[in-house]
Amino acid sequence: MNKKYVYFFGKSNVEGNREMRDLLGGKGANLAEMAGIGLPVPPGFTISTDVCSLFLEKGNKLPLEVEKEILTHLENLEKETGRKFGDNNNPLLVSVRSGAKFSMPGMMDTVLNLGLNDITLKGLAAKSGDRRFALDCFRRLIQMFGDVVLEIPKKKFEEILRKKKAEKNIYVDTEMTQEILEDVITSYKNIIKDAAGIPFPQDVKEQLFMAISAVFSSWDNPRAKTYRRINHIPDDLGTAVNVQLMVFGNFGEDSATGVGFTRNPASGKKELFGEYLRNAQGEDVVAGTRTPLQIKKMADRMPEVYKELSDITSKLEKHYGDAQDFEFTVQEKKLYMLQTRSGKRTGQAAVKIAVDLVEEELISKEEALMLVDPQALDQLLHPVFDIDEKSKAEELAKGLAASPGAAAGQVVFSSEEAVTWGAEGKQVILVREETSPDDIHGMSASQGILTATGGMTSHAAVVGRQMGKPAVVGCGDLVLDEEGKYFQLGGKKVKEGEAISIDGASGQVLLGEIKTKPSEIIRVVKGELKPDDSEIYQYFTKLLSWADEVRRMSVRANADTPEDAEIAFAFGAEGIGLTRTEHMFFEKERLPFIKGMILSETEEDRRKYLDKLLPFQRKDFFELFKAMHGNPVTIRTLDPPLHEFLPKKEDLMVEITEFKASGRGDDKKVKELEKLLERVRALSEFNPMLGHRGCRLGVTFPEIIEMQAKAIFEAACQLVKEGTKVFPEIMVPLIGSVEEFADQKKIIVKIAEDVIKKYEVELDYTVGTMIEIPRAAITADKVAEEAEFFSFGTNDLTQTVFGISRDDGAAFINHYLTHGIWTDNPFTTVDVEGVGELMKWAVEKGRKNRPNLKVGICGVHGGDPRSIFFCHKIGLNYVSCSAYQIPIARLAAAQVTLQENQ
Amino acid sequence: MNKKYVYFFGKSNVEGNREMRDLLGGKGANLAEMAGIGLPVPPGFTISTDVCSLFLEKGNKLPLEVEKEILTHLENLEKETGRKFGDNNNPLLVSVRSGAKFSMPGMMDTVLNLGLNDITLKGLAAKSGDRRFALDCFRRLIQMFGDVVLEIPKKKFEEILRKKKAEKNIYVDTEMTQEILEDVITSYKNIIKDAAGIPFPQDVKEQLFMAISAVFSSWDNPRAKTYRRINHIPDDLGTAVNVQLMVFGNFGEDSATGVGFTRNPASGKKELFGEYLRNAQGEDVVAGTRTPLQIKKMADRMPEVYKELSDITSKLEKHYGDAQDFEFTVQEKKLYMLQTRSGKRTGQAAVKIAVDLVEEELISKEEALMLVDPQALDQLLHPVFDIDEKSKAEELAKGLAASPGAAAGQVVFSSEEAVTWGAEGKQVILVREETSPDDIHGMSASQGILTATGGMTSHAAVVGRQMGKPAVVGCGDLVLDEEGKYFQLGGKKVKEGEAISIDGASGQVLLGEIKTKPSEIIRVVKGELKPDDSEIYQYFTKLLSWADEVRRMSVRANADTPEDAEIAFAFGAEGIGLTRTEHMFFEKERLPFIKGMILSETEEDRRKYLDKLLPFQRKDFFELFKAMHGNPVTIRTLDPPLHEFLPKKEDLMVEITEFKASGRGDDKKVKELEKLLERVRALSEFNPMLGHRGCRLGVTFPEIIEMQAKAIFEAACQLVKEGTKVFPEIMVPLIGSVEEFADQKKIIVKIAEDVIKKYEVELDYTVGTMIEIPRAAITADKVAEEAEFFSFGTNDLTQTVFGISRDDGAAFINHYLTHGIWTDNPFTTVDVEGVGELMKWAVEKGRKNRPNLKVGICGVHGGDPRSIFFCHKIGLNYVSCSAYQIPIARLAAAQVTLQENQ
Repeated sequence: MNKKYVYFFGKSNVEGNREMRDLLGGKGANLAEMAGIGLPVPPGFTISTDVCSLFLEKGNKLPLEVEKEILTHLENLEKETGRKFGDNNNPLLVSVRSGAKFSMPGMMDTVLNLGLNDITLKGLAAKSGDRRFALDCFRRLIQMFGDVVLEIPKKKFEEILRKKKAEKNIYVDTEMTQEILEDVITSYKNIIKDAAGIPFPQDVKEQLFMAISAVFSSWDNPRAKTYRRINHIPDDLGTAVNVQLMVFGNFGEDSATGVGFTRNPASGKKELFGEYLRNAQGEDVVAGTRTPLQIKKMADRMPEVYKELSDITSKLEKHYGDAQDFEFTVQEKKLYMLQTRSGKRTGQAAVKIAVDLVEEELISKEEALMLVDPQALDQLLHPVFDIDEKSKAEELAKGLAASPGAAAGQVVFSSEEAVTWGAEGKQVILVREETSPDDIHGMSASQGILTATGGMTSHAAVVGRQMGKPAVVGCGDLVLDEEGKYFQLGGKKVKEGEAISIDGASGQVLLGEIKTKPSEIIRVVKGELKPDDSEIYQYFTKLLSWADEVRRMSVRANADTPEDAEIAFAFGAEGIGLTRTEHMFFEKERLPFIKGMILSETEEDRRKYLDKLLPFQRKDFFELFKAMHGNPVTIRTLDPPLHEFLPKKEDLMVEITEFKASGRGDDKKVKELEKLLERVRALSEFNPMLGHRGCRLGVTFPEIIEMQAKAIFEAACQLVKEGTKVFPEIMVPLIGSVEEFADQKKIIVKIAEDVIKKYEVELDYTVGTMIEIPRAAITADKVAEEAEFFSFGTNDLTQTVFGISRDDGAAFINHYLTHGIWTDNPFTTVDVEGVGELMKWAVEKGRKNRPNLKVGICGVHGGDPRSIFFCHKIGLNYVSCSAYQIPIARLAAAQVTLQENQ
Repeated sequence: MNKKYVYFFGKSNVEGNREMRDLLGGKGANLAEMAGIGLPVPPGFTISTDVCSLFLEKGNKLPLEVEKEILTHLENLEKETGRKFGDNNNPLLVSVRSGAKFSMPGMMDTVLNLGLNDITLKGLAAKSGDRRFALDCFRRLIQMFGDVVLEIPKKKFEEILRKKKAEKNIYVDTEMTQEILEDVITSYKNIIKDAAGIPFPQDVKEQLFMAISAVFSSWDNPRAKTYRRINHIPDDLGTAVNVQLMVFGNFGEDSATGVGFTRNPASGKKELFGEYLRNAQGEDVVAGTRTPLQIKKMADRMPEVYKELSDITSKLEKHYGDAQDFEFTVQEKKLYMLQTRSGKRTGQAAVKIAVDLVEEELISKEEALMLVDPQALDQLLHPVFDIDEKSKAEELAKGLAASPGAAAGQVVFSSEEAVTWGAEGKQVILVREETSPDDIHGMSASQGILTATGGMTSHAAVVGRQMGKPAVVGCGDLVLDEEGKYFQLGGKKVKEGEAISIDGASGQVLLGEIKTKPSEIIRVVKGELKPDDSEIYQYFTKLLSWADEVRRMSVRANADTPEDAEIAFAFGAEGIGLTRTEHMFFEKERLPFIKGMILSETEEDRRKYLDKLLPFQRKDFFELFKAMHGNPVTIRTLDPPLHEFLPKKEDLMVEITEFKASGRGDDKKVKELEKLLERVRALSEFNPMLGHRGCRLGVTFPEIIEMQAKAIFEAACQLVKEGTKVFPEIMVPLIGSVEEFADQKKIIVKIAEDVIKKYEVELDYTVGTMIEIPRAAITADKVAEEAEFFSFGTNDLTQTVFGISRDDGAAFINHYLTHGIWTDNPFTTVDVEGVGELMKWAVEKGRKNRPNLKVGICGVHGGDPRSIFFCHKIGLNYVSCSAYQIPIARLAAAQVTLQENQ
């Protein structure tokens, strides 16, 4: 049997269904599904995604057997509709639309009204009894065909239309007379001939095949490729092509076209939401030349149609188990459905819709969990604009929503100013033509970033997301005068120092400083708002409690202070996966002791200073343990190189030079500085990241680790004595060989046993290690003979596996990302092929020698959903992330468990 | 059948042979072998190495069945000798000696005359007719038993002997009368009782078992453990114990004892070499209390014995196929062989002996290759002392020969002075009590290092070897007065600034500055001496030509200049494995262009400077290709971060501060400096090793790579046009992903095709990559889809796999090595468990996708024999090392091939 390439949907036959997204694309599968359940769908057929790769392989040519199969289905369509393609009297018109598995802007989209030519135009006019309508259809066809199939700049056509309307003093397309339309058609045909070098094809089959080919070709255009790269869509999926009977929303005032959403995509509220236009075709709604109406208005204007639409979309929501985003057309009061799919929504809406659907008994809890993008939960925690204030503000423009969040501040036009103003405590928005690596500090000092050029992968967008800074980019209307220190946008002139607000989730740029406030959920977590007073908090916790029922991995927090620990606990942390003890050292009252310790020349002197630090550390740990209510607390021993606690070499050199130049070279102070400089020089390193730090400090200065172990166990034993449960896990950083770990473990266990004995209590504890050096991963079998747990330090592991310093690499990594050399920043999401391979190896080898080895992750990747999925798949016991990422991690961990069980 | 633990050797029965070194240790196996081929070996038995682990497992106790088996063999020995152990009249005396598979200083060595007590003493006196002899044997037994078995400090016994001799005005042991010896014995017994808390055991079996146990115990003493660690001897080998009939070199003037070598161990000349002492026991030869005689003197004094010894040792050399190091004793003109083994020798001797043995048809070429330690070839290339001059110089003392080589210079006592004097162009020897990490710079500035304390693993020894600096350490007699700036040694006072010479291969410290000269081989290679005029050069090349016949891997050189390449070629390099193009940039006339290129703000400006650099690079490559005569030349594209070519940030800051302080802050010069500083700041990195370098430069600044590719291919094409064969291999550094490599390859291939077309020639070339980032190794299958060859950059690979910067790690790596946490420095020899595992993985994965993938190594490990062995085993095609290491690599590559074929 020959392979099947084309699938029909219509009254006479439906060959596809919604499960066939791989083959028919999302649009094709859903059209077939709707046709299958009896909804009013104009009949048509879908050319499968398999044809896409065949087409591209053949050098952008349709295989003959596919052409034949298309023609067979065209005949079927003619039979079902009783019209003929290219017929002089009763011509069949079709639309051609792309449709990949995943929604994919950037590809060729739609050509309507195919099948019209100078002859069939007359047939359509006669049959419809409306020559103006037929002419309108024809000029639309030529315009779309020119733009989409022949790639002639759209604005050439728009220019003609604009001129004609100006000439005739017409404001709305619908006012164009037949004569004007005929004029336009003639001009359009000339554009085609001039720009493409061929006349507009009169052969309707040629039109059809050219349009189909254009769709397939567009799969590989640069915009589509970039989109796939950013969204991790495989290049070999391919797109399908839908050929469908035309229905006409532009067939008079009883006709209309529109798009809608079964629930409010911003708030999640259950209400029919969307817009429609009377007497219009699809692109008019989006084009913005006419202002569409709220879909609810249809209830008054076309009550029967509204009722039918309402029923059908309810049915669709129930059928699909999710809120739907749909397209429809009304032709002479008859409703046709042209598309349905799960719609995009805000994080808040996603949570509310998912929970509501369960409570309306439309879906199960498990299905609800799969409806929410874990990363979207982050939106619920970001500061938000006060909605009332925002609605009052003037919107200047809309750019690309590159990095979510609300930001407001004074406009500055250079990174230097951003840094200076920021240092003065001002809140600024950095406005640039585009940003470059030189702007990193300026971006960091700003509340948000606005750029005129660049897309979703531009420097500002990538770095903004990386920094968690709201960013609106590619705001094309922005006219910047850096010299004059002002910009123009939306008809306004905004000078340096004037306030604007940007909404990185919507892309809006607004005039004035709109107040932001912490999200409700944060206010509840911090005890500023009662849980019962926040509806969204209720939804949020309900969804996460369902996630907790499902997920296999536990979720811990990285927390260095009791305050962090308390927030983490409130967000549902089941323990602490990483406490960086050095953060405790930087506090003002302790730093002198640290410095004294570092500058000591003998072990004896070092111990004196360490004795002074002990009570501070003990208190830190005491409160940390308390805040975690008996959950495990993983404490990492000292990690950073000692010189981090001392002044910088170059600053000392300059200071000494200044003293000397001012004739005070003999001052006692200078001698002191010189001595300090000598020590700083001795400790300074070319590559501190690869230097004397981590367990290497502990091996060479065991007294430091002894002090830390003593502080940990004295705090723990004291709590046990007071009747509080404690479970300390001591974690050794940066080991590369089991020998280093064994050395440190011996010291820690010795202190632990001594302290436990002294306090006369019972205390369980474990000693484990970070896996953050490739060699530790490679030799994990040996390491596991000694270590009782592993925790992947994926920040350092990524640095060493790639040989890239995260700080220094920003410049070229950004180049890699914007030039398509890499698709992901490995410091954001686990690099599965490289770092991930080593992680897998380490888990397998480690468990070979210690089957019950507990393994977690505490790098920044622990809060990244894709990385969490990977961690689950390689069998990790827990992920540990920042307190604010815990909700994300709880949901992601649940989703991957559900995926696995499917 | 019970397991056998004890093996007899004697006339009646020989149970072992030389193949049984694992079980009987080297000494035991060779004693059995000699007994087996009918040589005069005193009978005895060997307790196997299996007992060693049983003994240690049982908490230092001999298993009962072993004790029984020992007693059975003791009976056999009694039968064969006709004497009885502990017998009053005709007592059997035995020696107990350790003997592991590999010679192992640090273990308990020897106890002689076991079986003597107050009663058997009388029997021995009566039977021998020499009471003085019997007393001498007894006092020796008590002394050795006290020292070796009971671990009583040796000097306590020596002190008594010294006092007694002084009291009686005696200089030589042999002058001690019976009365004196009886006195000494009484005092010795008191020492034992006082120090050990037990009397000297009168029970002879107790003596025997205690001595045997002491040998086994000593396997695990710290010195032995350290020795094993440094010499890579597995801890579970264990030692054997040899119990053997005593023969007496101290039985009057017809008796003697000595050690010898069948060939001169320094020069390799064929001559009986060694020393002997009449009327003495073994330890006297070594102790230095009496001056031994040259073994050749025996020809006059004991002609029959000398003839017999000469015959026997010739036979042994032939039998073993190697020059032998032997021990013997003569009792009343009768010769006994006590040990034979392959003797230690200098590199020069090793080469000559190996070649001579082949030419004497005693061994095959393959066997000869296995006789020479590849690393020892290095000695043949080091500068040497002028032998005449050295023989005239006064030897002050002998310390431990910690790091080979000849060094002479002025004495300094601190690292600061070493650096200061060194900067003044003086040659200095750094003399310290011991060195510490603070001395690194001082050591580096010195010709050689001499220390008073510390062993073969001390800081000075380890670092000296690491730096290739001659070092003599642990020179115990050295009395240092750092304040007074002098030292005393060998009765001389040597002040700062006075000259000494040290021979790191012999441990000698000599007065005055002995001239050194380049080795003959270097002089030949550099064309300063004719090959025919150097005997050692002839030997050297002969041996290496045999190695070339055998080895599978080829050997290349790392060479950056035509001069390097010529030397490498003379040493037998079969190509260049690494040319670092950046070294060419640092030359004075080019640096301004490099700086200009780096400071350029546009690509256009950068290209202008690159155009100026092009002719220089083209000339470099032209000459390099020429020097390699058509062998492959691997050229690495630019690797170091650009800021390496600019001044240091802190220096600029100080300079600017000085300008400003002197009131010249407005000078044009300051503005320039400030602009430069700004750029230096922008380029400066926290961790340059992990920063913007390697292919990352090439990806972000493709114009640099274009220039380099153009220079390479223009040079190559020009040579082809001139009729010279050229084979360039372009190597991309620091890739972590195939995408980076593909980007660079595309640029290089494009330029190559353009240039080849322009020159109208045919030229083969390949484009490959360094594997020096863990991720490149992990994803080697993907990388090999694009790369035509791999070259392991084990320096950076070791840095990234361990997460250790080689420069910064020196301090703690040294701590690790001296504290036994690591046994090897991974920057010296490939870390097989970690780095090696990744290399293996990369070779396998790479060849999976490209079966004929050429793989080499160009890190420093390419010149390390153990690493070369490993490279062969994982299937590398070549190793590349410095020109001077090529002989080492040729031999090592041959040895591993032979090993494999065995």
